[in-house]
Amino acid sequence: MRATIMYKAGDVRVETVPDAHLVEPTDAIIRVSRACICGSDLWPYKLLEPVAGGRLMGHEAIGVVEEVGTEVRRFNRGDLVVMPFAFSDGTCDFCHEGLQTACSHGGYFGVGLVGGAQAEAVRIPLANGTLYKLPVREDDALIPSLLTLSDVMGTGHHAAIVARVRRGRKVAVIGDGAVGLCGVIAAKRLGAEQILILGHHPDRTALARDFGATDVVSERGDAAVEQVRKLTGGTGVHSILECVGTEDSMRTAVLIARPGAAIGRVGVPHYEGTPASQQAFYGNVSVGGGPAPVRAYIEALLPDILEGRIEPGRVFDRTIGLDEVPEGYRAMNQREALKIMVRP
Amino acid sequence: MRATIMYKAGDVRVETVPDAHLVEPTDAIIRVSRACICGSDLWPYKLLEPVAGGRLMGHEAIGVVEEVGTEVRRFNRGDLVVMPFAFSDGTCDFCHEGLQTACSHGGYFGVGLVGGAQAEAVRIPLANGTLYKLPVREDDALIPSLLTLSDVMGTGHHAAIVARVRRGRKVAVIGDGAVGLCGVIAAKRLGAEQILILGHHPDRTALARDFGATDVVSERGDAAVEQVRKLTGGTGVHSILECVGTEDSMRTAVLIARPGAAIGRVGVPHYEGTPASQQAFYGNVSVGGGPAPVRAYIEALLPDILEGRIEPGRVFDRTIGLDEVPEGYRAMNQREALKIMVRP
Repeated sequence: MRATIMYKAGDVRVETVPDAHLVEPTDAIIRVSRACICGSDLWPYKLLEPVAGGRLMGHEAIGVVEEVGTEVRRFNRGDLVVMPFAFSDGTCDFCHEGLQTACSHGGYFGVGLVGGAQAEAVRIPLANGTLYKLPVREDDALIPSLLTLSDVMGTGHHAAIVARVRRGRKVAVIGDGAVGLCGVIAAKRLGAEQILILGHHPDRTALARDFGATDVVSERGDAAVEQVRKLTGGTGVHSILECVGTEDSMRTAVLIARPGAAIGRVGVPHYEGTPASQQAFYGNVSVGGGPAPVRAYIEALLPDILEGRIEPGRVFDRTIGLDEVPEGYRAMNQREALKIMVRP
Repeated sequence: MRATIMYKAGDVRVETVPDAHLVEPTDAIIRVSRACICGSDLWPYKLLEPVAGGRLMGHEAIGVVEEVGTEVRRFNRGDLVVMPFAFSDGTCDFCHEGLQTACSHGGYFGVGLVGGAQAEAVRIPLANGTLYKLPVREDDALIPSLLTLSDVMGTGHHAAIVARVRRGRKVAVIGDGAVGLCGVIAAKRLGAEQILILGHHPDRTALARDFGATDVVSERGDAAVEQVRKLTGGTGVHSILECVGTEDSMRTAVLIARPGAAIGRVGVPHYEGTPASQQAFYGNVSVGGGPAPVRAYIEALLPDILEGRIEPGRVFDRTIGLDEVPEGYRAMNQREALKIMVRP
């Protein structure tokens, strides 16, 4: 089958690899119907040291179950399913607590012997716990929005939950990538009164406004902090969704926090120590978040997608075939595309 | 009157200063019945650069109201009161939310024109919001425990609240100073199942056991992390009360965290960036806390003190007169005394 391999920063290829096949009795194989390129894929695209044999890429997909192991009872051949970006057994303490990204037997796609989703097919470990069956057909118009349940919508929602967004809150979303935009949707959905989007791309911040952002802050650094304070009566915001992961964005998050605020960070942190630690302390500002347990959030978010109340699929602005994936990485990295859907 | 002044690191003196007097109509003057030396006073005792005129010290006291401004309606001459370490108006949004340490008009004792409590008397700004009247006499046997409502008991409780301690949780308290010991009391009070105290002083960890600690971890650094993991079935703890404030203690806090854990830090952070930021991220570990809104906690904690269910006053192991305060600083800094009560 064909699959995407990254050999080093900037070097992404689509090559023929051995077909995905059952390894454990708890595995399922899905034929990938739709996959994505993720903002987090751009970190290795910028930084990956050469890897012998390369790294299989992709961790978001909707697919059709082709084959199941003997212990897979919840899914059958032909089921349309969404895969979260992490696999999980669904039975351990962490899964029961809704933190599937800490599953005792879980892990991530594209790591070690587990393949990636930017491919014709992918092996799903622990299929009973990992997969979620979708109540639509493969060609449904809602597929793009449902595909975001793999990662970006659940991740934006996680940031909002950790940032304690609720009715009446003032919220800032840092980053106008797909996760930030989904964070705006999540904040709106949870009842935020004011939603500031911090971003520099006019087309993206325009989409953020469509999703419910009330204010756009396009300044950077200290000027952004000042602008947020101005827009919030001087006090800052109750909740910050940090959807970038750089030291600068995290510093901004702390400096725009109202005392007692919560920061939900979901951008993979590319810094050593969390900055502005003393400012956070004196303001009783909490910093939480991490890899989103998107599996836990599917049940809450799915009805809103099915009934059209949220449309996270609008973050996709380009659809490509599998052979175009290397060009897709280039385009996303150059900010020519916001988020790319792959149709293998 | 006599008051304590710190001129620079290691240089604490008790000197005659102008009597505390009403400045604003919202002020009260209290005659200090009991004050304390605080672990946080040891930071300037170690590090303070020379200050012209010195800094007035002390932020914990029980006292008797001697005089009130024309706008002070909730207190009368002769009332026995406890002062939180921060003053607050009791009427702003932050006070209503229970975050009095972010009060729009509040501040700290011993800063600027506001005096300190290691003195014969102290001016209390915003007395209506700040003070709390105690239902006992000045010579009551419970006075030491009630005095901890000024800071250490409320601060330990804050760490426990931010660390989301509740029934059945595994908890670690880092630091066996007065705040850490009060953190043990708070964790026990909130129903923790297992309470590990990380500390090196046998007399203090013995007191921690009296307060409800189930395990003592006297190792340091990596060995402490390993020991906590061993004592918790390999997973780490749900809640960490970080009561020290050094980079090492904060790193330990993150490394002993179970995925999804919460860290409540109340030790003033003496580091730039919060360490182990990526480990915290990958474990979805949150870091919160700051100056405790002890004023908010008095009502919850007071009945447990009055009815003898908690005895935080046991952290005091020495009582001195005002003139002995410089020696008190030396003794606490040398770890000869755990916490010192001052009887002016």
